[in-house]
Amino acid sequence: MENVKRQLEPVPHTDVQFNDQFWTPRLEANHAVTIPHIYRQCVETDRVSAFDLNFYRPLPAPIVLIFGDSDIAKWVEAASLSLATRPDPDLETTLDQVADKIIHAQQTDGYLNTHFTVADPGMRWKNLRDWHELYCAGHLMEAAVAHYQATGNSKLLDALSRYADYIDQTFGREPHKKRGYCGHPEIELALVKLYQATNNPRYLELAAYFINERGAQPHYFDLEARERGENPSNYWFKNYEYCQAHLPIREQTKVVGHAVRAMYLLSAVADIAHEKNDFTLLETCERLWNNLVTKRMYLTGAIGPSRHNEGFTEDYDLPDESAYAETCATIGLIQWNHRMLQFSGESKYADVIERGLYNGFLSSISLTGDRFFYENPLASAGNHQRQHWFDCPCCPPNVARTLASLGQYFYSTSPNHMWVHLYAQGVASLEVDGNEVQVRQITNYPWDGEVKLEISIDHPRTFTVSLRVPDWCDEWQLEINGVSESNRWVQNGYLTIERTWQDGDTLTYAMQMPIQVIKAHPSVRDLQGKFALQRGPLVYCIEGTDHPGTSLDFISVNPQQILAGQFQVEHQDDFLGGISILRGAAEVMDESEWRGKLYRHTRPLSRPIEITAIPYYAWSNREPGEMRVWLRSIQA
Amino acid sequence: MENVKRQLEPVPHTDVQFNDQFWTPRLEANHAVTIPHIYRQCVETDRVSAFDLNFYRPLPAPIVLIFGDSDIAKWVEAASLSLATRPDPDLETTLDQVADKIIHAQQTDGYLNTHFTVADPGMRWKNLRDWHELYCAGHLMEAAVAHYQATGNSKLLDALSRYADYIDQTFGREPHKKRGYCGHPEIELALVKLYQATNNPRYLELAAYFINERGAQPHYFDLEARERGENPSNYWFKNYEYCQAHLPIREQTKVVGHAVRAMYLLSAVADIAHEKNDFTLLETCERLWNNLVTKRMYLTGAIGPSRHNEGFTEDYDLPDESAYAETCATIGLIQWNHRMLQFSGESKYADVIERGLYNGFLSSISLTGDRFFYENPLASAGNHQRQHWFDCPCCPPNVARTLASLGQYFYSTSPNHMWVHLYAQGVASLEVDGNEVQVRQITNYPWDGEVKLEISIDHPRTFTVSLRVPDWCDEWQLEINGVSESNRWVQNGYLTIERTWQDGDTLTYAMQMPIQVIKAHPSVRDLQGKFALQRGPLVYCIEGTDHPGTSLDFISVNPQQILAGQFQVEHQDDFLGGISILRGAAEVMDESEWRGKLYRHTRPLSRPIEITAIPYYAWSNREPGEMRVWLRSIQA
Repeated sequence: MENVKRQLEPVPHTDVQFNDQFWTPRLEANHAVTIPHIYRQCVETDRVSAFDLNFYRPLPAPIVLIFGDSDIAKWVEAASLSLATRPDPDLETTLDQVADKIIHAQQTDGYLNTHFTVADPGMRWKNLRDWHELYCAGHLMEAAVAHYQATGNSKLLDALSRYADYIDQTFGREPHKKRGYCGHPEIELALVKLYQATNNPRYLELAAYFINERGAQPHYFDLEARERGENPSNYWFKNYEYCQAHLPIREQTKVVGHAVRAMYLLSAVADIAHEKNDFTLLETCERLWNNLVTKRMYLTGAIGPSRHNEGFTEDYDLPDESAYAETCATIGLIQWNHRMLQFSGESKYADVIERGLYNGFLSSISLTGDRFFYENPLASAGNHQRQHWFDCPCCPPNVARTLASLGQYFYSTSPNHMWVHLYAQGVASLEVDGNEVQVRQITNYPWDGEVKLEISIDHPRTFTVSLRVPDWCDEWQLEINGVSESNRWVQNGYLTIERTWQDGDTLTYAMQMPIQVIKAHPSVRDLQGKFALQRGPLVYCIEGTDHPGTSLDFISVNPQQILAGQFQVEHQDDFLGGISILRGAAEVMDESEWRGKLYRHTRPLSRPIEITAIPYYAWSNREPGEMRVWLRSIQA
Repeated sequence: MENVKRQLEPVPHTDVQFNDQFWTPRLEANHAVTIPHIYRQCVETDRVSAFDLNFYRPLPAPIVLIFGDSDIAKWVEAASLSLATRPDPDLETTLDQVADKIIHAQQTDGYLNTHFTVADPGMRWKNLRDWHELYCAGHLMEAAVAHYQATGNSKLLDALSRYADYIDQTFGREPHKKRGYCGHPEIELALVKLYQATNNPRYLELAAYFINERGAQPHYFDLEARERGENPSNYWFKNYEYCQAHLPIREQTKVVGHAVRAMYLLSAVADIAHEKNDFTLLETCERLWNNLVTKRMYLTGAIGPSRHNEGFTEDYDLPDESAYAETCATIGLIQWNHRMLQFSGESKYADVIERGLYNGFLSSISLTGDRFFYENPLASAGNHQRQHWFDCPCCPPNVARTLASLGQYFYSTSPNHMWVHLYAQGVASLEVDGNEVQVRQITNYPWDGEVKLEISIDHPRTFTVSLRVPDWCDEWQLEINGVSESNRWVQNGYLTIERTWQDGDTLTYAMQMPIQVIKAHPSVRDLQGKFALQRGPLVYCIEGTDHPGTSLDFISVNPQQILAGQFQVEHQDDFLGGISILRGAAEVMDESEWRGKLYRHTRPLSRPIEITAIPYYAWSNREPGEMRVWLRSIQA
């Protein structure tokens, strides 16, 4: 059997420091603003006091959903991850109190869920399909692992291990166990993390059981519905595609249903493929990845066009304005691709990570760090704004934990090999075959494609350095210690340099970063006749506020002029946190010519206009207004 | 008070004969194929035997919906209208039998509804909002009027008058009456027809009451829901926009809700404006017409983009492939515009009639006459085909009655004035100020824009002839008896010729008919970067079957080449019933360049291809395949 174990291992975020102009302010805002903001919101919405198990006092309104435990769990995880790189005694104290509250809510049998302990005790494990019980358990496990790794204190990890033990006694193929699994995947990847943190192989086996049992016949969700006295065919989503349980995972050919569920499930599938050396699961991941990335992904790395199922519809169905494009789905996409990247170091997975991080993920949080998008559409009539909180607040703490652990996506190591996936100014400490290597990136990425890498090492060592050549990069130059090495070859999307490295060696890697004109596959009917602007990893957009008095739909742009260099890149340090804008000539149709007309067969007049494009992630940080990623191309 | 009475009177279809290549074969197929086909379907689906009032025998399946009476009523109307110009003793016998059956089902109090007589007798008038009871009554009244006018036999008219009397005793503002009105407008316009046929003013007053009461507070649909023990807020459409009862009609500013309901309602509103000389109603029609025609109408004259409400959504929301575009809605649009046209003879209303007739209406029936579209989308992936019948078969008999009465849309008269709205070879007999005038059109319209009109008249008479200049026509020439008169002036879209006409006078009216490139308003986001081909009144499309091996989304066309005359018009007598095709050069993108790619920043290769466009109405008469009205414009 083919070996499908991962060859690469990510460098943990604790070993990667940023000191750049792009990410550092965001990580600081995450620590200083976002994490405290989310905590306050969780307190105010009784998500913290819920663990006192007396929350069924009269409330003004039922604002905590059935899966409220998961929100505070993600906050614990975010706070722990952030603390690991940014010591903060006050946060540490708060975190410890929350951990104690959670532990205190654990039942003697190990069960730990506030809703089903207090509000619906008789319904424990009665509706795995809809009620997110194991999903909440999973998030608590992830929190516990992060808490342990950040604090060294195992109390929360121990509590969640007891909960995992109880879940293990409850679910499985043995005759006395329920053959269930959660409608919302999450516990699977969490159990793998718990296994990695505790070395208890039962947790890995349980995760593998959940993956393998999913979609089997007779269908568990049918059985438990009948036990509740319900007709399974009354399921509100008609079939189990919604939760990826319509077929066993190895038989699935398209990425379907609720997008966050799909991504969390596939993250775990990739984990189990590695842990169990299971080629069929890796093959499944690759098949579904190909469907997703070549037919169902937005240019921004957002996924899931439909509000109806918070997820996928048909191939090439990628409407821009009505895109649901949930923040958590892009986060899940990043997590899954991070796992896929480690198998053999193919840059296509890092390309998706970079696309998601710089665009569909980063758009989800305001520059101030305290407002969030749940949905990340690629066009807006002006009615879509970031919110401080949501009734279903899954996204904000998910954003916080992703930012707090951002460093993990930048580097990997494999035997005798160091991988640089992403670029940002900062310093990373890696261990290559037991030798500590420090890499310093000096760069103004993503505003500039030149990256200088300085290697610090105790004594000369021979190993390979792989530098990712992003999918957007057609031309690059490389110098090693000032000597051109630009005819190096690129393997799986990485520039691969094997040599004996000396302390102080420098690599100067200059990625050409022109403004690019992106077109979508002709079958994406919503994007026909349109193009988008991208520069480096950043997708751009135009906002109404930069084009007063003009409806954005009336603007069209000649992409040939852009390719001919007639658009300018201007860096503005004081604008929207410091961004490079794109500026150039376009046309705007005369609105008066269309007054009272829906169709016309004579060519309408246009006049010239100068347009300004800003990075997509930075939109909606000023007054409300229109936004477009996809621009009308001037037509023949 | 301003006089808003109609100045024009339509020439009835019985006075307009066709002998052209375009409509005549369709009217013959309507008589020979469509009307018998619909009758057979009505018999087989127990829509005829329902009037025996014993239909609650065990049926294989409940195939007759609650408004089944309306389907056979529309068939009676279609058969009567067709008989009036095409004598057919067999059809006359069948029609007479059906009329007797209907009459026989009438209750002693005048009530006439098979469902609520047999199946749900206790529920009579209990749910006007949903149950189409008065809608069915309206269609029976329209049938009765047509039957009387075609046969001279008043038995069905008498029966429906008794039903109308009973309805009049039941509904109204008097204290002992119900202040209700039907969720599905139809009876209002039918009562006006009944009034016009019987001269009983009570029917006009009842129609006016239904119009004026609609949307009043306290809301009747709320009251009757509570009487049924239901909570009105549980209405499945949330608010009464669905049935245009959210506000009194005079307060409505946008055309909303179910499209057929909207058109039937507005037809009656136009009727009452005329009959009651009510400027506020005419103003309402004009306001809603402007909203519809400048923001909510498909290029084909189809209306109502959404399947959800079978109707309207937002301004400029006109997706092509998912267009619901119900056949009956375009028929209603034609009926309403026909009424609007008669007020003062503004060609914009005839433009909508022509657009609808030649495109969104005519597409609804196969060339064979026995298959129908319920929905008329403007693009198809190949999965949309005409059907022989539908569970809800409102469209087929609506198509049949429209074809059977087609002649009524062509001419009007007003004092000392004759109006030619539409063009087709044939002969019409008009009465202008009491003098009989015969007009013969000699033309190959719509394939050619030249129309020769010959006037036959007993002795010289002075009157005005108005010839419509269609919205698509930018250039025309006119000769009177061979002498150029091309500097005549155009008033309200009509070429207006006042003279003393002699027997044998000829008008040669040559409308230039180039291939036109139609663009949609920039705010129609689904159509940005696209254009459509139109020639004369015909909207064109491309079909997959003419472009084997090519996905239509990969084709793009340079509209400048079309405007430069590089597309050919070729008439093919033996193709799809005889059509002019458009043929010319386009580009097709290399599909292999897109394999495995969803986005790309380098320009994909294209190769030349010749494309063939056919009239939209003729699509889907060959093997199933893709179709597009809106074509990708070649981009810069």
